[in-house]
Amino acid sequence: RIMRPDDANIAGNVHGGTILKMIEEAGAIISTRHCNSQAGEPCVAALARVERTDFLSPMCIGEVANVSAEITYTSRHSVEVQVNVMSENILTGAKKVTNKATLWYVPLSLKNVNKVVEVPPIQYARKEQEDEGKKRYEEQKLDRLETKQRNGDVILPVINPEPHTVGYSQSSLIHLVGPSDCTLLGFVHGGVTMKLMDEVAGIVAARHCKTNIVTASVDAINFHEKIKKGCVITVSGRMTFTSNKSMEIEVFVDADPFVDEPRERYRAVSAFFTYVSLSKEGKPLPVPQLLTETEDEKRRFEEGKGRYLQTKAKRQAQMQQQQAAQQ
Amino acid sequence: RIMRPDDANIAGNVHGGTILKMIEEAGAIISTRHCNSQAGEPCVAALARVERTDFLSPMCIGEVANVSAEITYTSRHSVEVQVNVMSENILTGAKKVTNKATLWYVPLSLKNVNKVVEVPPIQYARKEQEDEGKKRYEEQKLDRLETKQRNGDVILPVINPEPHTVGYSQSSLIHLVGPSDCTLLGFVHGGVTMKLMDEVAGIVAARHCKTNIVTASVDAINFHEKIKKGCVITVSGRMTFTSNKSMEIEVFVDADPFVDEPRERYRAVSAFFTYVSLSKEGKPLPVPQLLTETEDEKRRFEEGKGRYLQTKAKRQAQMQQQQAAQQ
Amino acid sequence: RIMRPDDANIAGNVHGGTILKMIEEAGAIISTRHCNSQAGEPCVAALARVERTDFLSPMCIGEVANVSAEITYTSRHSVEVQVNVMSENILTGAKKVTNKATLWYVPLSLKNVNKVVEVPPIQYARKEQEDEGKKRYEEQKLDRLETKQRNGDVILPVINPEPHTVGYSQSSLIHLVGPSDCTLLGFVHGGVTMKLMDEVAGIVAARHCKTNIVTASVDAINFHEKIKKGCVITVSGRMTFTSNKSMEIEVFVDADPFVDEPRERYRAVSAFFTYVSLSKEGKPLPVPQLLTETEDEKRRFEEGKGRYLQTKAKRQAQMQQQQAAQQ
Repeated sequence: RIMRPDDANIAGNVHGGTILKMIEEAGAIISTRHCNSQAGEPCVAALARVERTDFLSPMCIGEVANVSAEITYTSRHSVEVQVNVMSENILTGAKKVTNKATLWYVPLSLKNVNKVVEVPPIQYARKEQEDEGKKRYEEQKLDRLETKQRNGDVILPVINPEPHTVGYSQSSLIHLVGPSDCTLLGFVHGGVTMKLMDEVAGIVAARHCKTNIVTASVDAINFHEKIKKGCVITVSGRMTFTSNKSMEIEVFVDADPFVDEPRERYRAVSAFFTYVSLSKEGKPLPVPQLLTETEDEKRRFEEGKGRYLQTKAKRQAQMQQQQAAQQ
Repeated sequence: RIMRPDDANIAGNVHGGTILKMIEEAGAIISTRHCNSQAGEPCVAALARVERTDFLSPMCIGEVANVSAEITYTSRHSVEVQVNVMSENILTGAKKVTNKATLWYVPLSLKNVNKVVEVPPIQYARKEQEDEGKKRYEEQKLDRLETKQRNGDVILPVINPEPHTVGYSQSSLIHLVGPSDCTLLGFVHGGVTMKLMDEVAGIVAARHCKTNIVTASVDAINFHEKIKKGCVITVSGRMTFTSNKSMEIEVFVDADPFVDEPRERYRAVSAFFTYVSLSKEGKPLPVPQLLTETEDEKRRFEEGKGRYLQTKAKRQAQMQQQQAAQQ
Repeated sequence: RIMRPDDANIAGNVHGGTILKMIEEAGAIISTRHCNSQAGEPCVAALARVERTDFLSPMCIGEVANVSAEITYTSRHSVEVQVNVMSENILTGAKKVTNKATLWYVPLSLKNVNKVVEVPPIQYARKEQEDEGKKRYEEQKLDRLETKQRNGDVILPVINPEPHTVGYSQSSLIHLVGPSDCTLLGFVHGGVTMKLMDEVAGIVAARHCKTNIVTASVDAINFHEKIKKGCVITVSGRMTFTSNKSMEIEVFVDADPFVDEPRERYRAVSAFFTYVSLSKEGKPLPVPQLLTETEDEKRRFEEGKGRYLQTKAKRQAQMQQQQAAQQ
């Protein structure tokens, strides 16, 4: 679809969150279709996890987003979908890859939302594809178990914070979950949640560096808990790490089922977003260093640095592989 | 209501689809109200057909759209509504007719969606009005039967198409039908469908001529099949004909009831949109000729030419009638 | 959240209606949460009244709106909420108070929408706070009874009105109430209604003075009647009074439950909006005097003048109090 003014920031760059929402919608459609393709129990695919994704080039207002999705692996109870997004300038015809994402869905029964339905297996062209998919499946399963533990953190307001401290840029918003945010089952679309998360992360990044900022990448996001229609969700973000030209922001989503349910507020999702600051010509600008004050902030900064260096190393290894393959 | 940035293209012209959506909403309201005006079965009017409509002058961001609707004919099971749209520049006070449309609605029972309720008859000021309405009713009924046949076509992707061929500009989008797209009965508003159709047709036109384009007219659209909440709809468009200064685009809407229903994908709507290309001063520009390659493309081009010449002849006849009447 | 192009007029000023909608959403969340905080009947808070609010400084596209809400008084069956809105320019860090509003909510049972649930009492820091709250409670109760009477007025179309008469600028719009406009109970959010009212009032003001206009204040609004999903609402506005630099517009909301219900059209809400006209530099401009023609128009003009002078006197008294307190 064509990108509209409301999809973009003032500089005309489409929000990463808008793109994540389109990706998730495409993934939900293809996996729901697949899971209903055999005469079984009617079901709706719910987003369980999004793998790390990089935003390779910004999309602009007036461009057309081309989204394509493909099922790349199925386990007994989950579907792996690969989604590619291309931006197309329909006036010049120029096309660019915006990003590629891998999503995991779980089919939930339409009749009983707590029941996971069996997934029809797909056919693989080569045996290796199945083996590689299985490896990816095991890896993400492990990672999901791990993140389930570290979810106790809360962001507290800070009075009169100094510029470039964590408290200075931290932000939160609340959103009442309405019918248009939800699937047929009455749960929030994963894409809606990701769009709100990107909105908060973007406010944190802009408050910190006071320039035009864009989403550079999103770390793997796990959706442990469904969020029901009528909940209030609180999305909070704080900066955890800065390199010379990038900022890492941690975002939490807490759901508050305050009507018609006997549950406490709970942590539904958390994730790391990376932003860069862009000049008017679209070149990355240096960002102010984050000032850490407490022990916790220093620890999170070091952890962020670890993720940053790991990603950098992975990317270099990939580039060397590609160069080796081309020789 | 006031036209907003999201209602318009980059040049500030309001999308034809936004206007079609407003027209349909007005028509649905007046005909639903009429069909519930007597103590009968509660019902909701569903769009069955829109007659050909011309966009006489473009509307711009910040202008106010004035929509007025009137019931002009009732048969036993259908209602004809005439809707007029005026654009008003509230700063200068200037008003222009944007377009006029005729829509046909069928009242469906709120309790049983497959039951068509009886329509209370309206009073006519003169007997001729009833006779003319009846003639229009018979004509559209015939046309609806005809289009029901020619609905088997599918648009296939083309690899590396040459500029200005049919494959070069053809486009499609998918949309998951959510609650805010639907009526009280859980079916997609006709206006929502037309807005998506106009969006795809606009992308096809812009890809072909790479300039600012606007909707000039829409041929009669028949809504043979309802589309239910939860469906995925695929809207595809291809260029069928070009004159010196206009492009005709055929648009298909296919619905895919992939959850909770044992139906195959089906063709819900199809229609022809005509676009013109505008210079910065708002003058029509010449458009590149469409290059037809296959036999089918050549046949469709000739059919499009037929429609083009027929419309042109009708318009000239009307102008002569008007001139004769003025003398 | 960040203000988007669709939230604002062509000059980039955010619509008062968008701000009212955010205020009401915050109020609905905090009061629904409070009323469900004790193990009682699940309920949803419905807006009963908004006190008069002044828009102290305009908000612009790209700024972040910070909305904070606090419960300030509870009676047995109602909750008073104080909501503050700050606009923040995230690039410069500048913050300004946009407006403060006081809202009254009534908790309705989720199981039986006609039953008002009991409100858990709040704790007051000082006894005076409770007494002042009780005084405000009694005052608004009285005012709600009064407005319930004067609701019979209807706005009729005028043919060829003269510039600057009442008929010249009067306006109305219709809106079909869809699922995304509604609460869990299936009734329109008060904030949605206020946004539409501001839209109509803004069109009336722009038609009258043909310049860039912004909402300056909104008088107390009472929500006597709920509006159900599927209704058509007609929002109409007419100018009642002009001072040298402000315009007062009266807005009516009529609901038409034309499907599935045996009710007549009824007046759901009415309110007075005050607008000012701004130059390109954001300075207030003189507005053309309203030309009154009929006896009713003259009476309404005098009543409007009364409200204007009363507000002016109140504001001066407050300023003197503040000056006295500072000395």
